[in-house]
Amino acid sequence: MLKAHGYATHNAHSALAPFSFERRNPGDNDIQIEILFCGVCHSDIHQVRNEWGSSRYPMVPGHEIIGKVTSMGSAVIGFNIGDTVGVGCLVDSCRVCADCSDNLEQFCNTATFTYNAPDNISGGSTYGGYSSQIVVDQHFVLHVSDKLDPAAAAPLLCAGITTYSPLHHWQVGKGDKVGIVGLGGLGHMGVKLARAMGAHVVLFTTSASKIDDAIRLGAHEVVLSSDVEAMQKHQLSFDFILNTVAASHNLDSFTELLKRDGTLCLVGVPDQPHPSPAIGNLIFKRRQIAGSLIGGLKETQEMLDFCAKHNIVSDVEIIPIQDINTAYERMLKSDVKYRFVIDLASLPADTNAEDYLK
Amino acid sequence: MLKAHGYATHNAHSALAPFSFERRNPGDNDIQIEILFCGVCHSDIHQVRNEWGSSRYPMVPGHEIIGKVTSMGSAVIGFNIGDTVGVGCLVDSCRVCADCSDNLEQFCNTATFTYNAPDNISGGSTYGGYSSQIVVDQHFVLHVSDKLDPAAAAPLLCAGITTYSPLHHWQVGKGDKVGIVGLGGLGHMGVKLARAMGAHVVLFTTSASKIDDAIRLGAHEVVLSSDVEAMQKHQLSFDFILNTVAASHNLDSFTELLKRDGTLCLVGVPDQPHPSPAIGNLIFKRRQIAGSLIGGLKETQEMLDFCAKHNIVSDVEIIPIQDINTAYERMLKSDVKYRFVIDLASLPADTNAEDYLK
Repeated sequence: MLKAHGYATHNAHSALAPFSFERRNPGDNDIQIEILFCGVCHSDIHQVRNEWGSSRYPMVPGHEIIGKVTSMGSAVIGFNIGDTVGVGCLVDSCRVCADCSDNLEQFCNTATFTYNAPDNISGGSTYGGYSSQIVVDQHFVLHVSDKLDPAAAAPLLCAGITTYSPLHHWQVGKGDKVGIVGLGGLGHMGVKLARAMGAHVVLFTTSASKIDDAIRLGAHEVVLSSDVEAMQKHQLSFDFILNTVAASHNLDSFTELLKRDGTLCLVGVPDQPHPSPAIGNLIFKRRQIAGSLIGGLKETQEMLDFCAKHNIVSDVEIIPIQDINTAYERMLKSDVKYRFVIDLASLPADTNAEDYLK
Repeated sequence: MLKAHGYATHNAHSALAPFSFERRNPGDNDIQIEILFCGVCHSDIHQVRNEWGSSRYPMVPGHEIIGKVTSMGSAVIGFNIGDTVGVGCLVDSCRVCADCSDNLEQFCNTATFTYNAPDNISGGSTYGGYSSQIVVDQHFVLHVSDKLDPAAAAPLLCAGITTYSPLHHWQVGKGDKVGIVGLGGLGHMGVKLARAMGAHVVLFTTSASKIDDAIRLGAHEVVLSSDVEAMQKHQLSFDFILNTVAASHNLDSFTELLKRDGTLCLVGVPDQPHPSPAIGNLIFKRRQIAGSLIGGLKETQEMLDFCAKHNIVSDVEIIPIQDINTAYERMLKSDVKYRFVIDLASLPADTNAEDYLK
């Protein structure tokens, strides 16, 4: 087994703290990765605090991983020692179901999430990217262009693919008018990606303070969703609206902005249900409310290549891992532009495992 | 002007009663139609009683019209005197907007409904099919095969196209597993049409008493939607579910039956909102909730031709127009299998207009 160390939490109420553990030795298809950077996703907070009721402890969070290949199994193809690589939300799936066959591993009923999941290979739980190294089957390892800043590329592995996948699936492109609702970790990626795809991009926000930043990030227009008159001007004009806001809110004010056959796509599950959407808004223009979940591996690679081509990364604030608990508190106040990324060089280089075990 | 007579209501609280009125003289593009049969749609009751708050009185309801051509304007092409024709929910639209250009006149912002709408040509209101004759622009007149029983074909003009259009738009066909929710005027057409399209058809109902009839109508399986265990057996198995039930109900028990990328399509606006749908059901399998509204003229003709080819009509109970008020009461108790159709031969042949005017 390989020694690894990182930060973990041991129950829903403790802070994250140093933790030593083991990774499996690389099998024939495995790639061993030294982790350089790991993005901090809002879902990390939900899981650390067991807000979804499915937490397994100890938990090492993190599924926006950028690292360097340090060793490989004999069957690994297309990777080299020293390559910059990424690992996102998934580290395994069944490979044979209809979803896997269609390169949509995220929908596989037995997909293994990068952390907080039963680890079918080693037993125990999967441990994520707030750590020194990770061992992942090559199918779930992505190539990351050296053109991209590695720290700023980390959030592409979740925030990037979560917004790219629906924009791509619903074929957003030149000539389309696309709305992005919310300017957070997901929304700011949605703006950049939709703009690079050639769409006319309108950012919806409740915060007047975000207008300038939205324009800087690539939005052609910004609309305060609380401004009824401004919203009405956009009625029946959108091909697609990507709604990144998970908090409960009125969806009708967005469905009525869609053209006939337009789609409002949600990527966040609200803690409290949204008010029931007006079905008339759907019927009278054949509109749809849809959901989308991260992306498959093939599409994630496409997204990374698209980002390399268009020089797209996340706007990040790099932190040492010692600041992770403070970062969570700031995220809960939306005090981050737009993603915290942990620099794993901040992990102590030489660790006495005994000090870490709790 | 042409003399016409039929049954009308004069306010939200009166019964329908005899009424004389005038139709415009046929213009160059108009077809004059002697009405033989008119189906009775549940929306007729809503509008007669002003339950949607947009009623115009006097109101002559009826938008499932089958008749014979009695005269035509000089520019009419492709019709002959004596032809059996149909008129559905629409009698006019702008002809130039994107929706009209795409043969989806039902979504045109200025589409004119067959009754209870401002009549842009004659002024006043449009009057529907509970009447002796109607004058309609040829673009909105459908060819009805003489292979089809004319009384039983009348409901195709609304119930038929309302169910055909979404099945067709979402490309239901051989190899698909399709659910139809509710076995009423719409649902029984949905079963027949989906079956003829080659799908494996499952009818969902809350009434055990409808099981035998659903099988007779073409369903391969019937599931009591109140039977949690029976519902669970169908999880993740449907390509498409057409929900014809307008009454408020839990949509989650149907969204979770859809495969990845499946669509739950609603065709009824509930008086009270449905419980807010679980967004997780959409996100975790990229499913969609959509709406659909009748169909365009081109698609309605396709539907009628499809029905002629597959010998599909509605199951109807033919009534004289004098029974219309009783029929409404029976419909409110779901006591009809599955559509009332008025035989307009029951209208007095010779009418003293003075007796009718109120």
